[in-house]
Amino acid sequence: MQFTKTLSPEAIACRYEALQDEICAGLEALDGKAHFHEDLWSRPGGGGGRSRIITCGDLLEKGGVNFSAVHGVLADAMTLHLQLPKGSEFFATGVSIVLHPYNPHMPIIHLNVRHFYIDDATWWFGGGIDLTPHYVRPADAQFFHQTVKTVCDPHDTQYYPRFKQWADDYFYIKHRHETRGIGGIFFDRLHEAGKQPLLDYTVAIGQSLVPIYAHYAQRYRHATYTETEKTWQLIRRGRYVEFNLVYDAGTKFGLETDGRIESILMSLPTQANWYYNFQPEPDSAEAQTLSWLRKGIDWV
Amino acid sequence: MQFTKTLSPEAIACRYEALQDEICAGLEALDGKAHFHEDLWSRPGGGGGRSRIITCGDLLEKGGVNFSAVHGVLADAMTLHLQLPKGSEFFATGVSIVLHPYNPHMPIIHLNVRHFYIDDATWWFGGGIDLTPHYVRPADAQFFHQTVKTVCDPHDTQYYPRFKQWADDYFYIKHRHETRGIGGIFFDRLHEAGKQPLLDYTVAIGQSLVPIYAHYAQRYRHATYTETEKTWQLIRRGRYVEFNLVYDAGTKFGLETDGRIESILMSLPTQANWYYNFQPEPDSAEAQTLSWLRKGIDWV
Repeated sequence: MQFTKTLSPEAIACRYEALQDEICAGLEALDGKAHFHEDLWSRPGGGGGRSRIITCGDLLEKGGVNFSAVHGVLADAMTLHLQLPKGSEFFATGVSIVLHPYNPHMPIIHLNVRHFYIDDATWWFGGGIDLTPHYVRPADAQFFHQTVKTVCDPHDTQYYPRFKQWADDYFYIKHRHETRGIGGIFFDRLHEAGKQPLLDYTVAIGQSLVPIYAHYAQRYRHATYTETEKTWQLIRRGRYVEFNLVYDAGTKFGLETDGRIESILMSLPTQANWYYNFQPEPDSAEAQTLSWLRKGIDWV
Repeated sequence: MQFTKTLSPEAIACRYEALQDEICAGLEALDGKAHFHEDLWSRPGGGGGRSRIITCGDLLEKGGVNFSAVHGVLADAMTLHLQLPKGSEFFATGVSIVLHPYNPHMPIIHLNVRHFYIDDATWWFGGGIDLTPHYVRPADAQFFHQTVKTVCDPHDTQYYPRFKQWADDYFYIKHRHETRGIGGIFFDRLHEAGKQPLLDYTVAIGQSLVPIYAHYAQRYRHATYTETEKTWQLIRRGRYVEFNLVYDAGTKFGLETDGRIESILMSLPTQANWYYNFQPEPDSAEAQTLSWLRKGIDWV
């Protein structure tokens, strides 16, 4: 705990802001065509953010990389929810990313790292990274989970198994009885390990996104696809919309607290489709994908 | 209250089932090309429903007309919410409709009528009809509200003004600071007027749907439209998805109680789009539409 005095929330915000720069630079290089559009916004109650969106690229149809650092007095509903004294002042900062590719053989990827601070005794880190392939292929899923495990292990060998299960439970579309994708890691309220180690851990997760996505881009960005495969992608994006609007804690928090709506909902794809009672052909690649969208698979 | 002994919930269900038939026949005639596909389903706890979906028509891209009559023991969360004794048995029946047209100049229409019954003392009716034009035109909005008022007035002249305001409050996308469309009427927990009068009222609302939609079809089903207008339609459908997944009480209830998911989500359009921070051109038809998407407009 020696770091609590030297590592202020502002310093953490500064590190996350640099992480956003780093990731955006990496994604622009990977895409090779489009550039991020930046919107700066400020929050009436204190602080603000830097929303960056990339659209109509070579690889990416729509991607958002958000940084924010907001502070002020917590709303009563939040102090109650977080079991904090009424009127507590907070500082919250983080980076949030969703990338929707054109090619249905490329996965959707999501990442979030965040720090929440009340005072030197009350603070925590949260975040995670997870993958939503439109087509689940075991070798690709294994690569993702192995890579994430390799990022986690030097920090704590318990992180990957604990946070993998947490992601399985969190990224679950209850009303469909399906996971959103193949999961990854998800965690919240980490404190015990100390500020600097947890900042380092979340930054390491952030830095894993571009290399992971580049791995898939190399294989699938120019893969040919059929009309059936494109349609399936649009259906899976519909599920993504359902998860984000019905269950995602960050989205719900943003909608309820009157956050900057365009930054919150930039996670939604350009286009999503819903067909009544769509059932894939038995033994098709789509049916196989559905069979993998469940909790508790040990991909490593 | 003389009717409570002679009008059973099963009889009301029977009347609603006939209403579904009547509306489906009217909509098939209006569409002129597609026919409804029917799925019968039963609920493990008791009862079931008749889902009917029409797709790829001449007028309708996707439309659902649902009838259901379910019964059993209320979940604890529901008895708490409804302030009823734990373990109460219920009977619930209703018809629910959403129509998504191809042509962006045609509106989306939604209707719901429902009866909820615990015992001869504890029961109520709910429902409403509302319109979501992709392009709001005052004359069209005036027609809709005037027609709905004309349906309401013979039953009770207080119904339209009360339920119009209720719809303004209910069909509100809080996070967008927009109404979903031009509203209409919405009501719940009606009991005082008596069973037969309330059944008659809800059936009258149900019977207004086809003539209202035919009015717009005559004008707009073959209207020419630009690419900009089609895109705007897809954006407005995105708002429809947002409302239904984030706020709609029926959808939330269905998702939380593990209802038949394809019947619940058949209200979603075939395709919806989200563009980051889309802003219509000043003084465009799209900007004018946005200016009408607010509460408290007296269309009559």
